[in-house]
Amino acid sequence: MKKHNFSAGPCILPKEVFKKSSDALLNFNELNLSLIEISHRSKDFVTVMDKSISLVRELLNVPNGYSVLFLQGGASLQFCMIPYNFLKKDGKAAYIETGTWARKAAKEAKLFGDTKIIASSADNNFNYIPKNYTVDENLNYLHFTSNNTIFGTQIKKFPSIKPPIICDMSSDIFSKKIDVSKFGLIYAGAQKNMGPAGTTLVIIKDNLLGHTNREIPTMLNYQTHIDKGSMFNTPPVFSIYASMLTLEWLKKNGGVDWIEKVNNKKANMMYNEIDRNTLFCGTAKTTDRSTMNATFLLTQASLKNEFELACKNEGISGINGHRSVGGYRASMYNALSIESVEKLITIMQQLEKKYI
Amino acid sequence: MKKHNFSAGPCILPKEVFKKSSDALLNFNELNLSLIEISHRSKDFVTVMDKSISLVRELLNVPNGYSVLFLQGGASLQFCMIPYNFLKKDGKAAYIETGTWARKAAKEAKLFGDTKIIASSADNNFNYIPKNYTVDENLNYLHFTSNNTIFGTQIKKFPSIKPPIICDMSSDIFSKKIDVSKFGLIYAGAQKNMGPAGTTLVIIKDNLLGHTNREIPTMLNYQTHIDKGSMFNTPPVFSIYASMLTLEWLKKNGGVDWIEKVNNKKANMMYNEIDRNTLFCGTAKTTDRSTMNATFLLTQASLKNEFELACKNEGISGINGHRSVGGYRASMYNALSIESVEKLITIMQQLEKKYI
Repeated sequence: MKKHNFSAGPCILPKEVFKKSSDALLNFNELNLSLIEISHRSKDFVTVMDKSISLVRELLNVPNGYSVLFLQGGASLQFCMIPYNFLKKDGKAAYIETGTWARKAAKEAKLFGDTKIIASSADNNFNYIPKNYTVDENLNYLHFTSNNTIFGTQIKKFPSIKPPIICDMSSDIFSKKIDVSKFGLIYAGAQKNMGPAGTTLVIIKDNLLGHTNREIPTMLNYQTHIDKGSMFNTPPVFSIYASMLTLEWLKKNGGVDWIEKVNNKKANMMYNEIDRNTLFCGTAKTTDRSTMNATFLLTQASLKNEFELACKNEGISGINGHRSVGGYRASMYNALSIESVEKLITIMQQLEKKYI
Repeated sequence: MKKHNFSAGPCILPKEVFKKSSDALLNFNELNLSLIEISHRSKDFVTVMDKSISLVRELLNVPNGYSVLFLQGGASLQFCMIPYNFLKKDGKAAYIETGTWARKAAKEAKLFGDTKIIASSADNNFNYIPKNYTVDENLNYLHFTSNNTIFGTQIKKFPSIKPPIICDMSSDIFSKKIDVSKFGLIYAGAQKNMGPAGTTLVIIKDNLLGHTNREIPTMLNYQTHIDKGSMFNTPPVFSIYASMLTLEWLKKNGGVDWIEKVNNKKANMMYNEIDRNTLFCGTAKTTDRSTMNATFLLTQASLKNEFELACKNEGISGINGHRSVGGYRASMYNALSIESVEKLITIMQQLEKKYI
């Protein structure tokens, strides 16, 4: 049975990424060697790293003066690398708290100095994006989480401010056009739209580094990885290779211009159904809804088992909501087809026909 | 042509690991989903993590009171996590400098407080293991690197001392029996005998944690990962799965008892030839020679091209020495067959026949 994978992450990737990376594990580049048994200093892997970096540059139109890194440790390790590298010893930074991950990022920065949460939507279980706040011009940086997988909200417009903006884009990078020049640092765990778990993309404005007067451990210093082209130590070979394949797929199909249209279409279809069908209701504020993760509830709790069984029978997987919201979450990352969204909508409509 | 992969790392792994992980990328556990598109919280992946941990426990006979972790960032990230977690603010630690990686580990610890290199073989390009040194009983820890891939040396016996021993076993873990109870912490990048690059094994004595009076960033705190069973954030799914397969292969074939015999046999064959054949000579002190990496030189520089061409023609790859030693390095990790060592020896003997 064909599966429709709505998992919130790690999540669906293009079929050709599974096929090509599966082949590379048996015989990479006709070397008669597996991708995972060759030296990361070999010409064959250096080419993978170079290609991955140049695909990121091309797809996101990364300006000169920015470096592109593939690191390890997930977005969670970035939570401490950011203040280590950007928060001056006597400086200050601010955070916008839009969910669980934003909160974790802010908590980590507290260890390093004067940091504040200047806006939060915690008062309403993070179901909206706070927009009214004043930004101190002297901040070392202001931190955002662009898309909140758990709560199904997404920032549609970033403010124009003087301090550098640092943004965790783990769950919506490569889903739409962004203006990289507006950011001081963008980071993203790979495991949504970029590739499998195990590597973290960082896009960093070079001239912001080196100003904190801190002694930074080598591996936590972005400059280390810039100087060594993300090869200071052995990189996560497989995760980077599969990310390269995913970015090649995106480029071949039309890049972020193309996928933005597809993603908007899928999200519109999904939210239209959630709003139209009285058996369901959305949990996030309409204007702040995420194109990546649609969170919704059944309005009649008694239909829970029937709805879930129907999903299961049609091959739909991964739509259970996070425990802190409940209900359902349809994650519609880049590789999820329109057909899969149609399938889910059909199930919702069949339930409606039977009971309304 | 069959390849004989002597690469120093990432390195050869068992063929069945390539085959099974390749299959899992297409259809994992008959789910009709790829291994890399499922949630790390799914039953299927939680089982992989549990199995990996229990295989480590079983194969190395890990005592109670020790935790087994699968982290990210390589051994290089451990270099700063170790002093963060083990070096008291007013404490001291010592390092034995046996090569490039030991030096990097020691350098990193300097950022955190009073650390000293109490023995070094730098005076002779790290071609031996220093053995005469006095250990201060009040150290928070003493740090070793058990095997030095670049220089081809290996510690055969650890001292019995009062302070906890912390050891980087990246390049010889699972190659022979070890007594885990003698160590406070053992760590190892996966990419030699355990699996592909992208995860780092840590075996840690629980009761040594929590005594430094430092505020440790969440991701750098071993206790975080112990509390969450290595699932504080999304783990490197593929690397852990392929590591599990490698450990299953080792167990099935007879565990570390078995592989230790095989490794000793391969190393004896290789070193016997290096010592017997006047066209070659070893670079490491005989008593400290590594069973994993045999470093050697051609005694007649004029034969360089011919030797290297013969290797290439016979499918031998990855035997160039590291630039800081020169010559050749035959890395004979667990998955390298005796047949591959025989093949290399045959080439060495053919060269001898022609010129001596």
